[in-house]
Amino acid sequence: MDEREGNYMIRIGIVGYGNIGRGVAKAVNAAVDMELKAVFTRRDPESLKISDSYAFVLPIEEAEKMTDDIDVMILCGGSAADIPQQGPYFASMFNTVDSYDNHTSMNEYMLSIDAVVKKTTAIIASGWDPGLFSVMRVLFESILPDGENYTFWGYGVSQGHSDAIRQIAGVKYAIQYSIPVDSAVEAVRSGINPVFEARDKHLRDCYVVVEPEADKAEIEKTIKSMPHYFKDYNTTVNFIDTGEFFAKHSNMPHGGMVIRSGNTGSNKHVTEFSLKLDSNPEFTGSIMAAYARAAYRMSKEGIFGVKTVLDVPMSYLSEKDRLTLIKELL
Amino acid sequence: MDEREGNYMIRIGIVGYGNIGRGVAKAVNAAVDMELKAVFTRRDPESLKISDSYAFVLPIEEAEKMTDDIDVMILCGGSAADIPQQGPYFASMFNTVDSYDNHTSMNEYMLSIDAVVKKTTAIIASGWDPGLFSVMRVLFESILPDGENYTFWGYGVSQGHSDAIRQIAGVKYAIQYSIPVDSAVEAVRSGINPVFEARDKHLRDCYVVVEPEADKAEIEKTIKSMPHYFKDYNTTVNFIDTGEFFAKHSNMPHGGMVIRSGNTGSNKHVTEFSLKLDSNPEFTGSIMAAYARAAYRMSKEGIFGVKTVLDVPMSYLSEKDRLTLIKELL
Repeated sequence: MDEREGNYMIRIGIVGYGNIGRGVAKAVNAAVDMELKAVFTRRDPESLKISDSYAFVLPIEEAEKMTDDIDVMILCGGSAADIPQQGPYFASMFNTVDSYDNHTSMNEYMLSIDAVVKKTTAIIASGWDPGLFSVMRVLFESILPDGENYTFWGYGVSQGHSDAIRQIAGVKYAIQYSIPVDSAVEAVRSGINPVFEARDKHLRDCYVVVEPEADKAEIEKTIKSMPHYFKDYNTTVNFIDTGEFFAKHSNMPHGGMVIRSGNTGSNKHVTEFSLKLDSNPEFTGSIMAAYARAAYRMSKEGIFGVKTVLDVPMSYLSEKDRLTLIKELL
Repeated sequence: MDEREGNYMIRIGIVGYGNIGRGVAKAVNAAVDMELKAVFTRRDPESLKISDSYAFVLPIEEAEKMTDDIDVMILCGGSAADIPQQGPYFASMFNTVDSYDNHTSMNEYMLSIDAVVKKTTAIIASGWDPGLFSVMRVLFESILPDGENYTFWGYGVSQGHSDAIRQIAGVKYAIQYSIPVDSAVEAVRSGINPVFEARDKHLRDCYVVVEPEADKAEIEKTIKSMPHYFKDYNTTVNFIDTGEFFAKHSNMPHGGMVIRSGNTGSNKHVTEFSLKLDSNPEFTGSIMAAYARAAYRMSKEGIFGVKTVLDVPMSYLSEKDRLTLIKELL
C-alpha cells in the first residue's frame, strides 16, 4: 500500500543563504533521504562558504537551467521583498517550499502562485507561525468548536521589533525579546477564556547599544511610544555595551504556544502546543526541509498546485513508510 | 479552488451508545454541518434514551438497509471485541470512523478493512492516543530527526487499569488514575533526553470500594503485585466507601503529553503537545466527529480506502472553507 521509493535521495536547492538558508542546509544534511544539490545566491558565489562541500554555489540566474537536477527548491529569502517575486518565479518551474509569513497578503500571494503553477507542487507559509501553529489552530478549533484559540509568542527574539529599534537615530545595535505574560498563560490554561488587550499577553524586553553621544532618555522614550511595535505593550529598555551585546545576545531563541480552551457542554478541555527553540532559523529550516519531502512526494503522486501546511497529511513529512509509521508511531 | 458544498448536512450514524457514543452524539449536535441520523444498538432500541429526539434508534441489523441515508458511520464499540468485527463489516458499506486503540494488532486490523473497502473511506484509530498523539509523534520526529519522543498519560482515569482491579475478588467498585511524574516531565522538557523505567514516568493511584468482609491488606497486595498493570509502578491504594466513590470519582478526566526534545547540531529544541480533559469520552467523541467530516469529504473526492489520522490533512477536519482557513487561522 505504499508507493515510496527505496533509497532515492531528494535533490534540494536552496535560494538565499541567510540564517534560514543555513538552517535548511543543516536540516537537509541531517536527513537520510535528501541531498543538497545547490545553493543559489544573488551574492558573488565565490564569497559564500557553505557547510556542504559537495553542493554547488551558483548565481540565482542559473537556477532555471537546472529543472532536471533539483526536485524541490526551498525559498529562504525575506517575505517583504524576495518571496513575493521568487515564489511565483520558482514555482512555475520547480516544486517549492517557502516560509512566507505576511498574513495580510497571504491570499494574494497564494493566488500569484496559483496563476503560474502547472505540474509542480508549491507549499507556502511552512514555518512555525504561519505553519505549525496554523495546523494546531485548525485542529483545535475543528475538535472543540465551542472555545477560543490563544497564541503566545516567545520567549524569543522578534526580528521585526529589533529592526524597528535599529531605525532610531543614535542606536548602534538592538535586540528585542517578546515574553508571554505568565499570568495570562495561566488564565488561558485554567479554561476561563479571558479577553486580553495586547499588553496583557506579552512583555517587550529590549537591549540597546547606543552611539557615544546619544541621548538614552530620548531613545527610550522613542522606543516606548512607537505605534504598533511598542506603544500598546509594557516595554523595558536596557542599555548595554557592545561587549555584552555580542556576548549575551547573539543567539536567536524563540518559541511560543497555541492554547485552546473549549467546552463540550459543561465539560472543559484545554489543548496546548508549545515550542521552546534555541535557534529559530534552524528550527524553521528543519520544518521547511520536512515540507520539502512532502512537496516532492505530492508532486510524484500528481498532487500539483499551491498548498499550505493545512493541505499536507503528516505521513508526507516523514522519511518512514506507512507500515513503519503505523507500527512505531501511531 | 474549493469544492465544498454550501449548506449540506453530513448524515451521521452511531454504532454503539456507551460513553463514547454519547460523546459523539454531543459533538455531532454541536457541529453546524452534521446531523445525527440514527443510533444503532444491540440493546432493545426502546430502552435507549438519546439526546437528539430527531434521530432514529434502531437495531444494529437495520444498518445495512440504510446505505443511502447515512454518509458516515461512527463506530463507538470496544476495541477488544466489537471493533475488530464491526470495522470491516461497516467499512464495506459505509464511510467509517473508529477509535480502535489496540497498538499491537493495528496492522492486522488495518489489513482486515483494506481487504473489504471499495468505494468508501475508513479512518481508523482516530481518538487521541492513538490519534492526535500519533499525529504529533510523526510531526515532531519528522522535523527533529535527532531527538526522542516521550509520551505521558494523565492525570486521568485508565479504564484498563480500573477494570483490572475490579476483577479482584472482594472488590465492589474501583477506579485508577494515571499520574505523570512531575520530575520526569521536567527532565524531558529540560532537553536532557532521559532514559526511564516505567515507574519513573507514571504513578498509579487507585480508589477501591470493597465488600464488607473483604481482606483489604490482601487486596492491596494483589493490586500492587499485578504484572503489566501495577507491578512495575509506584502504586497507591486508597479504600473508600460507596458514597465517596460516587461523589468524587464519577467523572472521566484524562489528558497527557507528547514531548520531543531534539537537536539541530548544538542547538536544542523542545516541542510539546498536551491535553487536559474534563471528559475523556466527550473529547474523544469530538475528535471522531471531526474525522467523520474528513471521511465524508475524502470519499466525495474519491479518496477511498483505509486511512489513519496520519493520512488526513487538517483542512479536512474543519467546517470552514479553504480561503476562510487561510484568512482566519493560517
